[in-house]
Amino acid sequence: MSRTVYVNGHYLPEADAKVSIFDRAFLMADAVYEVSAVLGGKLADFDGHMARLHRSLDALQIPSPATDEELLAIHHELIRLNGIDDGLVYLQVTRGNVGDRDFIWPKDAPPSLVMFTQTKHFEDDEGPRRGIKVVSVPDLRWGRRDIKTVQLLYSSFAKMQAKAQGADDAWLVEDGFVTEGTSNNAYIVTRDGTIVTRNLTQDILHGITRASVLKLAAEAQMKIVERPFTIAEAQDAAEAFITAASTFVCPVVAIDEAQIGDGKPGPVARRLREIYLENAEATAV
Amino acid sequence: MSRTVYVNGHYLPEADAKVSIFDRAFLMADAVYEVSAVLGGKLADFDGHMARLHRSLDALQIPSPATDEELLAIHHELIRLNGIDDGLVYLQVTRGNVGDRDFIWPKDAPPSLVMFTQTKHFEDDEGPRRGIKVVSVPDLRWGRRDIKTVQLLYSSFAKMQAKAQGADDAWLVEDGFVTEGTSNNAYIVTRDGTIVTRNLTQDILHGITRASVLKLAAEAQMKIVERPFTIAEAQDAAEAFITAASTFVCPVVAIDEAQIGDGKPGPVARRLREIYLENAEATAV
Repeated sequence: MSRTVYVNGHYLPEADAKVSIFDRAFLMADAVYEVSAVLGGKLADFDGHMARLHRSLDALQIPSPATDEELLAIHHELIRLNGIDDGLVYLQVTRGNVGDRDFIWPKDAPPSLVMFTQTKHFEDDEGPRRGIKVVSVPDLRWGRRDIKTVQLLYSSFAKMQAKAQGADDAWLVEDGFVTEGTSNNAYIVTRDGTIVTRNLTQDILHGITRASVLKLAAEAQMKIVERPFTIAEAQDAAEAFITAASTFVCPVVAIDEAQIGDGKPGPVARRLREIYLENAEATAV
Repeated sequence: MSRTVYVNGHYLPEADAKVSIFDRAFLMADAVYEVSAVLGGKLADFDGHMARLHRSLDALQIPSPATDEELLAIHHELIRLNGIDDGLVYLQVTRGNVGDRDFIWPKDAPPSLVMFTQTKHFEDDEGPRRGIKVVSVPDLRWGRRDIKTVQLLYSSFAKMQAKAQGADDAWLVEDGFVTEGTSNNAYIVTRDGTIVTRNLTQDILHGITRASVLKLAAEAQMKIVERPFTIAEAQDAAEAFITAASTFVCPVVAIDEAQIGDGKPGPVARRLREIYLENAEATAV
């Protein structure tokens, strides 16, 4: 069955969902996005995703295309129209289209809003069950990774390099330290049980799942340190894992072919996944 | 009058020129482009632009959407349909659309090809006549600037910062040295008459106009050195200028409010513009 997607006020069959070639997302990657998980038909961490959307829009001086209440209503309508039980809702806001290509931002152009759903059977996802393998790749992305823009070509390229090496994903390395994964935040658990993840700067995405997981870990009395770490330190760690809206908490069992711990998902990552999902389901809207 | 533009085999009124929201250019900036100048209805440096297009496509493993002969024919048809005497032809190739969003590159997806014209009265362009003012801005773009992708958000942002400071454009600075302009290559002329421009690496775009200008300068017995230079060195230079397909050779008369030379377009830049235009007109196709 064809999906129903949302484009600038209209709910359309996906085959009819089109934008002008003069939309600035198409010509200049002038757009930001969010991806929210749907659990049992409801949205996980919705307020966090909306707060980050506004930070991204503000950083680029793109006006918001709708209120949070309106955006929530469109999310809900897409979930309903497409019968999504478990899956994702993708939202993209672009600076819009003023009919020609120009580096100068248009004045008073209405932003474009595009949204669509993806079905994802999280319980069938093998990654979290067996753990994923990552390889290190130099981080060549732009310098404002805290703004969630659609400039995803390098992340996509890094993921392709990982696949070519028989791995599931890549961890990006800059100046000797891991920044993050291609579309997720990166963590290790040291041998004394401390959760280590890079501190928030312009160098990494300020993950919404990251914020929730760290809050829940702190509530569970786990020790957390936010600082950069190296690939060598990660290879020597007790555990490693990633977080993202599309995979929640997912263990990493090998980095550049070095096995992490006993090569199986570790207890900290498994426990965090459990308490994250429990909380996300309880607070979903 | 509405333009006629080209989208995947069709010549369409610009208002009808649309692509799927699932096109990877729209969702992931997974696309490359070229801009060719039209002089007297003919294309300047066309072979150079096609050669660079193939380098960009090859670097990203995107298949070519058409032969060079076919691309030339589409350029000519757009010039004819839109009655372009002087102006630009914009060409964009995207990795295409396989109906859903995924970081993994689709197998065997046909690339998308979009082209459109822009009228530009080069002789009315004030920049080359009075010289432009630039300001320095940190270069936060990704690390593969030799691939001409549509990831232009930061270049656009830097140009907006320049405008906000009352300047015409920005020169991007990394590790203390100028990389290039936001959409052009950067040059100085030292007090002993040497043309200095950054050497070709992954740090800058390999400008087609740059290549032609340097070739013509060498033929005119001018001294050229390809190496990085600083803003301070540029401010102390006899002249400064930029090159791009849309502005040919354009003098720079101020950098961060410091006047260059006597604050007027210098003889080397003026001479290079003259011989570039003469050659471009003579060799246009």
